[in-house]
Amino acid sequence: MNDTTQDSGADVRASLRQIGETARTCAAVIGAAETPVKNGALHAIARQLDQSRDHLMRENAADLKAARERGTAGAMLDRLELNAARIDAMIAGVREIADLPDPVGEIGGVQARPSGIRVGRMRTPLGVVGIIYEARPNVTADAAALCLKSGNASILRGGSEAIRSNRAIAACIERGLEEAGLPAACVQVVKTPGRESVSAMLALDDCIDVIIPRGGKGLIERVAAESKIPVIKHLDGICHVYVDDGADIGMALDIAENAKAQRFGVCNAMETLLVADSVAAEFLPRFAERMKERKVELRGCDKTRRVLPDIAAASDGDWREEYLAPVLSVKTVAGMDEAIGHIGAYGSKHTDAIVTRDHARAMRFLREVDSSSVIINASTRFSDGHEYGLGAEIGISTDVLHVRGPVGLEGLTTQKFVVFGGGQVRE
Amino acid sequence: MNDTTQDSGADVRASLRQIGETARTCAAVIGAAETPVKNGALHAIARQLDQSRDHLMRENAADLKAARERGTAGAMLDRLELNAARIDAMIAGVREIADLPDPVGEIGGVQARPSGIRVGRMRTPLGVVGIIYEARPNVTADAAALCLKSGNASILRGGSEAIRSNRAIAACIERGLEEAGLPAACVQVVKTPGRESVSAMLALDDCIDVIIPRGGKGLIERVAAESKIPVIKHLDGICHVYVDDGADIGMALDIAENAKAQRFGVCNAMETLLVADSVAAEFLPRFAERMKERKVELRGCDKTRRVLPDIAAASDGDWREEYLAPVLSVKTVAGMDEAIGHIGAYGSKHTDAIVTRDHARAMRFLREVDSSSVIINASTRFSDGHEYGLGAEIGISTDVLHVRGPVGLEGLTTQKFVVFGGGQVRE
Repeated sequence: MNDTTQDSGADVRASLRQIGETARTCAAVIGAAETPVKNGALHAIARQLDQSRDHLMRENAADLKAARERGTAGAMLDRLELNAARIDAMIAGVREIADLPDPVGEIGGVQARPSGIRVGRMRTPLGVVGIIYEARPNVTADAAALCLKSGNASILRGGSEAIRSNRAIAACIERGLEEAGLPAACVQVVKTPGRESVSAMLALDDCIDVIIPRGGKGLIERVAAESKIPVIKHLDGICHVYVDDGADIGMALDIAENAKAQRFGVCNAMETLLVADSVAAEFLPRFAERMKERKVELRGCDKTRRVLPDIAAASDGDWREEYLAPVLSVKTVAGMDEAIGHIGAYGSKHTDAIVTRDHARAMRFLREVDSSSVIINASTRFSDGHEYGLGAEIGISTDVLHVRGPVGLEGLTTQKFVVFGGGQVRE
Repeated sequence: MNDTTQDSGADVRASLRQIGETARTCAAVIGAAETPVKNGALHAIARQLDQSRDHLMRENAADLKAARERGTAGAMLDRLELNAARIDAMIAGVREIADLPDPVGEIGGVQARPSGIRVGRMRTPLGVVGIIYEARPNVTADAAALCLKSGNASILRGGSEAIRSNRAIAACIERGLEEAGLPAACVQVVKTPGRESVSAMLALDDCIDVIIPRGGKGLIERVAAESKIPVIKHLDGICHVYVDDGADIGMALDIAENAKAQRFGVCNAMETLLVADSVAAEFLPRFAERMKERKVELRGCDKTRRVLPDIAAASDGDWREEYLAPVLSVKTVAGMDEAIGHIGAYGSKHTDAIVTRDHARAMRFLREVDSSSVIINASTRFSDGHEYGLGAEIGISTDVLHVRGPVGLEGLTTQKFVVFGGGQVRE
């Protein structure tokens, strides 16, 4: 298929249906594949990528050229680029996933029941996973490897701006799978550009078990609104740090500084700081010093501005904003209740932290803050698959069902009940 | 609101939106409620139901009278009826849920990471659970109690045929909640009849976290098609028993008989029997004898009919049929591969069993059959929340995401990450 051809809607739908049905067939094969076979395929894919560096760079250069001609620049162009270091990282990522333990087939919690049967749960693949993503071509290798290791067939639909890079990576994946004796179609990269292929994919609820969108908020909202398939969403990270009454001020300064300024453009960076009234006078001026050094703009509530008169006033919109930039909103609160209330009202259920010395309040914060990660006395920046020991992550779920927080291999699996009997029948 | 009033669509939508927003507010309260408070509410609800027996019977009699006047009869009328024994069972069910361990707040899997933080997961409520159900008014008490114990606010939308019974039960629940110091609106029963209230409820994706439909296939398919909220579905139970090469024939006869004939109208009853060629001649005639005694009609494939020439031929449709009746389709297969293939092609991912003496094949069946329950050497009838030790169940999920098989309290919860630090920041 020529990438400049504009397929008709019907052709796109037929093509995606074919891909979906093929994936469903492959799911049974990859779902039953033994660990050494899957790991062999991952190492073969890594080798194929390694041997195809020149081809990958050439195809990526063509994508970059086309993007530049369309006027793409800045961060978008940067995300699209594959250079030697990024190819190294992509290959290392695939090998790292080969080294992770295989979650599939793990049996846990087996208990004897009064009837004499023993009941437990076995971890199994989800089936067919669809990933819809933008720009970064390394997601193709990354997502393929995570789905493969977790025993899922995958359908990967990258952005049309990276189509040549993605096809080149897909060819490496296909050769690697075949080398390991697995069907090449265990991973399928959608090669039809255009939004129609996304819509056609989101309609395949009989072929795809879950959709994971990776990209900007616009993409994720569109996918969620249109999909007939369950979606694991990663929306905003409006993360808070709450500095409690009687907190260790030195610890609070370090944690708040790290949460805001260690990296700005990441979803687990702090966007709003909440400070208990009783520590505001001591904490805020020292914190403002540090933020000045880090060139972070502060926007405060009225109470905060009584301590820090030079900073701008925060509007209601500031409490709802994921800046992803050197800007921080600061609110001085009466205490724990107001902090938890604010997080509930303005947070995004991503990651929220408390700095406290009080055990009861720490445990209450842990329980009552309804976010995918709740942290006591550490930076929000730890909310990450690698830091949590999950290995690579395919995203960070801000949904509630199935999986919350960083989604690693386990999040790409489910559990079925297994019963071990000795001839029991039900009375 | 008068139940004979036909609300306009806009009024119904406004009323459901109000219910949804109230539920969202209550979710924070019930989610943070301590175990003794929730248990106190459950016991208070049980007492209220006990004290309202006469009122419940009168309201139910009015529903039954109206149903009879509309020409309802048979099983539908039976499901609608509340009698003394059913009220006893309903009250006992609520008390039993009070006695189950509280899943909320349980922390597991805490591990120290190289950074020094400790990471684990805490079990939390889902938030707001919507239940859409038909006929049986006891579901109102049952579902309310399960949602309450698991810390969820709930919105219960029963069938309009049971509206007076459901309102009477709802009044008991409300009084019980208030007696325990919880907001009555932690459980809200939708009092607007008509299909419009279902549609209005399914559109509240910002207020409701999960929808659980309980009822016939038509209801479940409609809810799944229309809902913008994630749905935990329970569709068909086309359950299989596979009698393997070299199986213990006595055990196979007992298990197959129990799976088919212990109860006919249940989703975990066997609907298709698969028999390995090598044991067909010995097994099938003895099994046919037992089925004759149980008045079960057999329909067989060609190979089966060579052994049992008197039975009818099974059509392709028979392999796809959930009879829920004394009818069984029987297929003689070459062995394990064909059995697993047949289950994959015609099964409903509910419950499938193998009768075997061979360890390797048992473990392969366990792994490769992609159903919510896979059973070795026991009846499919064990696929049940009580038999599995989950306590009461709110349904049996044939979905893959979040939860598979019987859904008890744990299935109404999720897990968030919790991090215990000592001042760590990320490098």
